[in-house]
Amino acid sequence: MKLLEDRIRKDGIVREGEVLKVDSFINHQMDVELFREMAREWKRLFAGKPINKVMTIEASGIGIAAIVAAEFGVPVVFAKKSMSVNLDKDNYETRIQSFTHKKIYEVIVSKKFLTPDDHLLIVDDFLANGCALMGLLELAQEAGATVEGIGIAIEKGFQTGGALIREKGIQLESLAIIESMNSATGEITFRSQPHQS
Amino acid sequence: MKLLEDRIRKDGIVREGEVLKVDSFINHQMDVELFREMAREWKRLFAGKPINKVMTIEASGIGIAAIVAAEFGVPVVFAKKSMSVNLDKDNYETRIQSFTHKKIYEVIVSKKFLTPDDHLLIVDDFLANGCALMGLLELAQEAGATVEGIGIAIEKGFQTGGALIREKGIQLESLAIIESMNSATGEITFRSQPHQS
Repeated sequence: MKLLEDRIRKDGIVREGEVLKVDSFINHQMDVELFREMAREWKRLFAGKPINKVMTIEASGIGIAAIVAAEFGVPVVFAKKSMSVNLDKDNYETRIQSFTHKKIYEVIVSKKFLTPDDHLLIVDDFLANGCALMGLLELAQEAGATVEGIGIAIEKGFQTGGALIREKGIQLESLAIIESMNSATGEITFRSQPHQS
Repeated sequence: MKLLEDRIRKDGIVREGEVLKVDSFINHQMDVELFREMAREWKRLFAGKPINKVMTIEASGIGIAAIVAAEFGVPVVFAKKSMSVNLDKDNYETRIQSFTHKKIYEVIVSKKFLTPDDHLLIVDDFLANGCALMGLLELAQEAGATVEGIGIAIEKGFQTGGALIREKGIQLESLAIIESMNSATGEITFRSQPHQS
């Protein structure tokens, strides 16, 4: 999506260690007008799919998920992170390793809010190694819900998460896929996606 | 706001220890259509205020904040919780005690996203003892930002947070104020607010 790529070029900051900071418009300060344009693009890309719920994981996915859900006219459910093992039997549970925070999170969704009747659009701000997404897919599978598609704002195309998801046959629409970035020059190369606007 | 009070009566669950569960529509599953009606009510209640940013704290405030910001046509900034002391000098920092989770959180906002030019509407899902809000007010004050008002979905009127905030002379609009609730009968009594819809 050209609008997002342009914004990343303008306001994203490339740091050493293949870190891209987009905290001025995505995951600390949030440009909800941009989120609305992203939501409209996903609506076009997932047209015809019987999506009845948006799913994400706290915290930085929630803002995008809320705007996307408003655009689709459906509710959101967000998976909650907990550092303690939660033994409530009313939850689906899994574990997610966060490389950014070097922690393992217990992640839960209440059984009340994820059922075989759900047709999910999973959304998140970043996709890198795919650990968080794999956790969400596992929770959806436990619940017997159908994953209709996955919408990601920024995919690090040089990490393995995107390929892992696409191998599963799930429609994954990352609105900006970074092929490479250079912390010395700040240069960012995006993967061409002719089917996107 | 009658719409929210009715929804709490219908879908809220009163538990022992003055706990109100609203996780089916506010803070685990999120009814963003309801959030949009709440946002419109706050827009009416804060009409004429030069609000240019919505501020909240992760995680459950973010969904409401995103929808409110879309309605006001402004960005969101959300304060981040961290359990470790963060020594980055580019952040405003404070500590917030969570009674629910029995923890003390270090809470941060980047100095880039909170400045003397900001006129804030602070929003959150719950107000009880006011610890989280006091932390956000402290961050705003450190930054020299102006707090134009505070919008809360559900205030526990029998706890002290609401009175503490109103004593400061800040316009606080809680869309449902619970005077009392009974876990045996499930009965909830709301404070009358004739100026709200």
